[in-house]
Amino acid sequence: MNEKIPYKTYLTESEMPKKWLNLNAFMPEKHDPFLNADGTPCTHEDLEKVFCKECVEQELNFTDEYIEIPEGIRKFYTNFRPSPLIRAYFLEEILDTPAEIYYKYEGTNTSGSHKLNSAIPQAYYAKNQGLSSVTTETGAGQWGTALSMACAFYGLDLDVFMVKCSAEQKPHRKEVIKTYGGNVIPSPSETTNAGRKILQEYPGTGGSLGCAIAEAVEKAQNTPNCRYVLGSVLDHVLLHQTVIGLESKIALDKYGVTPDIVIGCVGGGSNYGGLIAPYMAGKLRGENNIDFVGVEPVSCPSMSKGKYAYDFCDSAKITPLAKMYTLGCGFMPSPNHSGGLRYHGMSPIVSKLYHDGYMRVEAVEQTKVFEAAVQFAKCEGILPAPESSHAIRVAIDEALKCKQTGEKKVILFGLTGTGYFDMAAYKKFNEGAMTDTIPTQEELEKGFATIPKL
Amino acid sequence: MNEKIPYKTYLTESEMPKKWLNLNAFMPEKHDPFLNADGTPCTHEDLEKVFCKECVEQELNFTDEYIEIPEGIRKFYTNFRPSPLIRAYFLEEILDTPAEIYYKYEGTNTSGSHKLNSAIPQAYYAKNQGLSSVTTETGAGQWGTALSMACAFYGLDLDVFMVKCSAEQKPHRKEVIKTYGGNVIPSPSETTNAGRKILQEYPGTGGSLGCAIAEAVEKAQNTPNCRYVLGSVLDHVLLHQTVIGLESKIALDKYGVTPDIVIGCVGGGSNYGGLIAPYMAGKLRGENNIDFVGVEPVSCPSMSKGKYAYDFCDSAKITPLAKMYTLGCGFMPSPNHSGGLRYHGMSPIVSKLYHDGYMRVEAVEQTKVFEAAVQFAKCEGILPAPESSHAIRVAIDEALKCKQTGEKKVILFGLTGTGYFDMAAYKKFNEGAMTDTIPTQEELEKGFATIPKL
Repeated sequence: MNEKIPYKTYLTESEMPKKWLNLNAFMPEKHDPFLNADGTPCTHEDLEKVFCKECVEQELNFTDEYIEIPEGIRKFYTNFRPSPLIRAYFLEEILDTPAEIYYKYEGTNTSGSHKLNSAIPQAYYAKNQGLSSVTTETGAGQWGTALSMACAFYGLDLDVFMVKCSAEQKPHRKEVIKTYGGNVIPSPSETTNAGRKILQEYPGTGGSLGCAIAEAVEKAQNTPNCRYVLGSVLDHVLLHQTVIGLESKIALDKYGVTPDIVIGCVGGGSNYGGLIAPYMAGKLRGENNIDFVGVEPVSCPSMSKGKYAYDFCDSAKITPLAKMYTLGCGFMPSPNHSGGLRYHGMSPIVSKLYHDGYMRVEAVEQTKVFEAAVQFAKCEGILPAPESSHAIRVAIDEALKCKQTGEKKVILFGLTGTGYFDMAAYKKFNEGAMTDTIPTQEELEKGFATIPKL
Repeated sequence: MNEKIPYKTYLTESEMPKKWLNLNAFMPEKHDPFLNADGTPCTHEDLEKVFCKECVEQELNFTDEYIEIPEGIRKFYTNFRPSPLIRAYFLEEILDTPAEIYYKYEGTNTSGSHKLNSAIPQAYYAKNQGLSSVTTETGAGQWGTALSMACAFYGLDLDVFMVKCSAEQKPHRKEVIKTYGGNVIPSPSETTNAGRKILQEYPGTGGSLGCAIAEAVEKAQNTPNCRYVLGSVLDHVLLHQTVIGLESKIALDKYGVTPDIVIGCVGGGSNYGGLIAPYMAGKLRGENNIDFVGVEPVSCPSMSKGKYAYDFCDSAKITPLAKMYTLGCGFMPSPNHSGGLRYHGMSPIVSKLYHDGYMRVEAVEQTKVFEAAVQFAKCEGILPAPESSHAIRVAIDEALKCKQTGEKKVILFGLTGTGYFDMAAYKKFNEGAMTDTIPTQEELEKGFATIPKL
């Protein structure tokens, strides 16, 4: 039967999910609540000062298993979704593996990644609430691009704080955001207190997601009729990303296929959480024993080397505290070529799943990641983003294990985006000039020291 | 019924075309044959010195209406096709037009354009013939990227002569080609006689497609077991591109929709010829009266200002002569931001169709083209290539005419690629620094003077 599975499966519009899956409702034990700096749990009111009202509703919803996707969002979803579920026949052939490999490819839209899945609802809810502008941060630039597209569509102004080293590596990415009307500010910047403070402490720093978040939050709070929107980490972002997993499962179910392993890269954790959601919901209820793998860079090993503790989501300590795996909100990762994975913390949901033993984590080196990326590009045709290539690396490794053991495992991985804007990184790799940076124990300790003591 | 037409239509694998459509077989009057420099018609043997054997067979086939797509090609086609046929509901809404607008979007693959449709068969036939390498030219870089992907897949070495001003505008495009193993040489270069000669005549020139072709042909002829492959102009390239039109028609036929106008940008003419093919085949037999529109830049007006004459396909006059609309093989177009449309000549098939009154041509200014591109990007989400945006410009203009007249015309246009690698051009436009260049009568006359007198 599997021989009939096509290279690509697209759902029809009527097959597309009409509800997101709320993983929080399936968790037998909920993750710890967000806290204010004074240690009190965050209320709706606390969070609504920073985020859009509807997003806060979703963030604090631990009961509804499914949440309706409004018509106005599904309309724009239909414009760039469904994304294809691809059977990696060419990769299987090159690897000569008995494994079946599938990947869900989120890179066919102009933002080049899965980020649009959450940018659209967040812009939609902001507009519905009557806001006139939003602020955000962006690492690799994919989130900023996605949000600029969503803001152009719904009619909102936008300030994007872009991690400085990414802004320099990807000048063209900046220009895409500007073309869609977004205002790009390299971070750390002189435009906020948070930025100025970090520039004083770390002159010449390439910046980090944590620092850019701090600037964006500050800007939103000082601008009338404006809120901050975030591209990952939070539960409502992960909720929006469940369209990835839901579409994948609907497509695989058509062929009677269930994955044995599900693999995704983890930066803030939302794409990964979204990909695994429908399968993880089953595992949480004891209905399957799928092997879930989150892949992170060795240069920013939030889960494999991090502590499970309450920490700030940003480096300026102005966001609420989340219980998560963290390297410390003051951890400054060395520049690498996966801007989207350079974050000190991790989604509270993903952190809780890891902590409770429902998934495992692999940390991989970027040279090995780019080897996998180029091997994949040459046979499957798609030039993957460095972030996504972390998942490819582990998918290939798992398929090669199957070759040794003879197991016909079914591997599903998330291919979150394209590498079109990462050619500076590919150039470095092509020229043999790429290196790996692993944080020293001293650097880790320095980061851990910035985790607040409650 | 039309209300049920989805945003996007994807064919299933079994619905995908298994044959290309050979427009030459449908032409009541065939176009004039290729000639050698001495004025004698080109034989198979003449052409096989330059091109792959099977491509020459196809080039000289004026009888078979359909030509089988080999299994080995359809396999790779299935990896990145079908491309979506998209109903431009968002654009229709913004324009407030009674027209129905559809576009066939070829930009979802990594090469970012339709070029892969012909790169794959050409690399496949080269490999089957036992060649070890091929050479080519590239303008915007899309063809070079596509061919590098195809060569990586089938295992062939590749030299790409890239028009110098494009290579400078798009350093990252170069790096994609290198990532897939292609060797990029900015043209004019010092590596060939043709390049050296042009550099002497026009020091500091940004190059042209005609010049890059000359260098690639020379390199192929001086390299053992190597042939030259071309990304447009020739009949066999147009043949391969008919998958675009065939897929479009199969999708539209499902909904009982027939276009009133079909619009495509024309550089060498192959994407346009491929898009219109199945509908034009009908028009040639008197079965429809569709309005076919080819759109070219005013800065390189091969059809609207060119002469219908025998001319060389390259500026060094080493290729065969083709009867086509031409500005003269020595015409040096001013640099603009649509590298793929900067060609002095035009596909012999498209030239013949235009000459015989089966289609019309519009020449548009690049500032107007970028206005259309940004309007389209903001509502439809897709950031279009400057080349493709020529078609968008005219599609919007036609839809606005319908708004005035109240006509509910059905418009189909070809969206050949993405603008990811054209951000330098968008930057210029965003900053208001873009200008239009229209060749003077003197410049045109200088070009015409280079058309050979037979």
